[in-house]
Amino acid sequence: MQTVSEIGERRLIAMFTEAATSTADDVVIGSGDDAAVFTATGPVVVSTDTAVSGRHFRFDWSSPEQIGARTVVQSAADIAAMGGRLTGVTVSLGCPPETPVDRLLEVNAGIVAQTHSYGARVLGGDLVSSPAMVITVTSMGVLDDVAPVTLAGARAGDVLAVSGPLGGAAGGLALLSAIDHGADPSLLDRHPSVVAGFRLPQPDPRQGPKAARVGATAMTDVSDGLVEELVTMSASSGVRLDVSSAAVPRATDLDEVGRDLGVDPVRWALAGGEDHVLLAAFSDAMPDGWTRIGTVSDGAGAYVDGEPVGSLRGWQSFSTT
Amino acid sequence: MQTVSEIGERRLIAMFTEAATSTADDVVIGSGDDAAVFTATGPVVVSTDTAVSGRHFRFDWSSPEQIGARTVVQSAADIAAMGGRLTGVTVSLGCPPETPVDRLLEVNAGIVAQTHSYGARVLGGDLVSSPAMVITVTSMGVLDDVAPVTLAGARAGDVLAVSGPLGGAAGGLALLSAIDHGADPSLLDRHPSVVAGFRLPQPDPRQGPKAARVGATAMTDVSDGLVEELVTMSASSGVRLDVSSAAVPRATDLDEVGRDLGVDPVRWALAGGEDHVLLAAFSDAMPDGWTRIGTVSDGAGAYVDGEPVGSLRGWQSFSTT
Repeated sequence: MQTVSEIGERRLIAMFTEAATSTADDVVIGSGDDAAVFTATGPVVVSTDTAVSGRHFRFDWSSPEQIGARTVVQSAADIAAMGGRLTGVTVSLGCPPETPVDRLLEVNAGIVAQTHSYGARVLGGDLVSSPAMVITVTSMGVLDDVAPVTLAGARAGDVLAVSGPLGGAAGGLALLSAIDHGADPSLLDRHPSVVAGFRLPQPDPRQGPKAARVGATAMTDVSDGLVEELVTMSASSGVRLDVSSAAVPRATDLDEVGRDLGVDPVRWALAGGEDHVLLAAFSDAMPDGWTRIGTVSDGAGAYVDGEPVGSLRGWQSFSTT
Repeated sequence: MQTVSEIGERRLIAMFTEAATSTADDVVIGSGDDAAVFTATGPVVVSTDTAVSGRHFRFDWSSPEQIGARTVVQSAADIAAMGGRLTGVTVSLGCPPETPVDRLLEVNAGIVAQTHSYGARVLGGDLVSSPAMVITVTSMGVLDDVAPVTLAGARAGDVLAVSGPLGGAAGGLALLSAIDHGADPSLLDRHPSVVAGFRLPQPDPRQGPKAARVGATAMTDVSDGLVEELVTMSASSGVRLDVSSAAVPRATDLDEVGRDLGVDPVRWALAGGEDHVLLAAFSDAMPDGWTRIGTVSDGAGAYVDGEPVGSLRGWQSFSTT
């Protein structure tokens, strides 16, 4: 089995470039030169997201393809959260020199496949040696005749809604962690959809532009947990946000996983992160498929079932655990 | 002294956002939301570059500001190499949780200052925990009424030229390494410009658009060493490239450092990397300040003083050393 250091940076980059080849009309120059060039005729939306081995993913918990694809899901969700449509990504991969080449190519295949599934392409990247695998995806997108939707526009009287179910990623992580600590491994087979929600969440990024078109006043993706996003949106918009916990849609099978692990699944839906569905405020109609979870009013702060969210906070993507 | 894990991701990102605040006309939404939005009215050039602690930089060799600034120099050079003008960057910082906050803020200050010195701005970023500090800068730029200059356009009869002196980064690295292995530390004081060439190379990115305007037929920045770039350009353009080693401009004081270390400084200029000046082929005039170093002819391969460059190759940014 060849390692990354044996095969060398330049040959690997050539292999990546081949995997990423795309003939999209708006790509003037694709990967393989100093920089890529694409045509833009309006506002460009850009965001970057990094995942680190042992911290954001584990190769014994997810396949290399899932790990690569998930980084694209996370980064692309930020484009959707502005109302944008993903058009291209750049990728930086850091890995130990002893990494098997096949593993790196599989991670890259996941990145390319997920990017293509979004109708976008890989525009270029970098490959470096690092003590742990580090994947940085920078996403770029366009706004198709909609104004960008920030965190700051929610107004009293608006309705709060989410574009999909929550808690799957946190529930799946809890399952994998429990098995790591001795729980019955057959739990994974009994709850495949929840485990899949951790390994490769499937938010629908098209909901971002759809929400923008019907006039969403504020929007974000749920990366740090619903309550954390509520706190941020509340502060940015200068309003009070109230959510009913019973109204928050929970991932399929999440309640059963909660029973099996002795955890309240509502907590995963409220405080768990990384589902990357969209949270938005609407003053008027909302798109099909969204679920109303609460209200916007004058005041300040984020509340769940009438109580301040304080006790539910604390999950952060940066921690030592 | 506070550490990164004590202060937390959100407060740090808020501090970064404050440091990066910019009111440039074409930035619709700056950092602080899910994604940044900037206006583009033509081709957008994008490239990404990653630097890893212990591999691409060392805190005992460079200041945190220099380390941050250098990552911007490296990434921005790829925009210049297409003929583009840098307009914005996104930054992903990974670091161990025990990293002192001051160090991280100084790295960020270097990133912001270098970006601003190029007339561009920091559009956003990410902050994660990782075993070593990892800095990824994704650069975006525009082409001001010039066509992008690829690696593939050099033609027989063109002249090869570079936009600045070479070897400074390799000579500075050799000095620092020698002192690490017992050489007299006063060598640093005797050769400040060469050490500075490693710590923070100062290529002029404005030379990229200038070269594009006068009709450069192929261009790249010297990141992996001149001979490596010659090999790449030769293969991409399908031509033979000949360089005269005596014509390659060497960094100020480089010959003296070579004498002090017993190394042929021409080797640093030919095979050393990370100076990030531009190498281009011109069919007609070249801009002021460029130095002619060789010729383009029919055939294949890269030659120095009439010999194939094979023996000079080997430096690669990905290695275990």
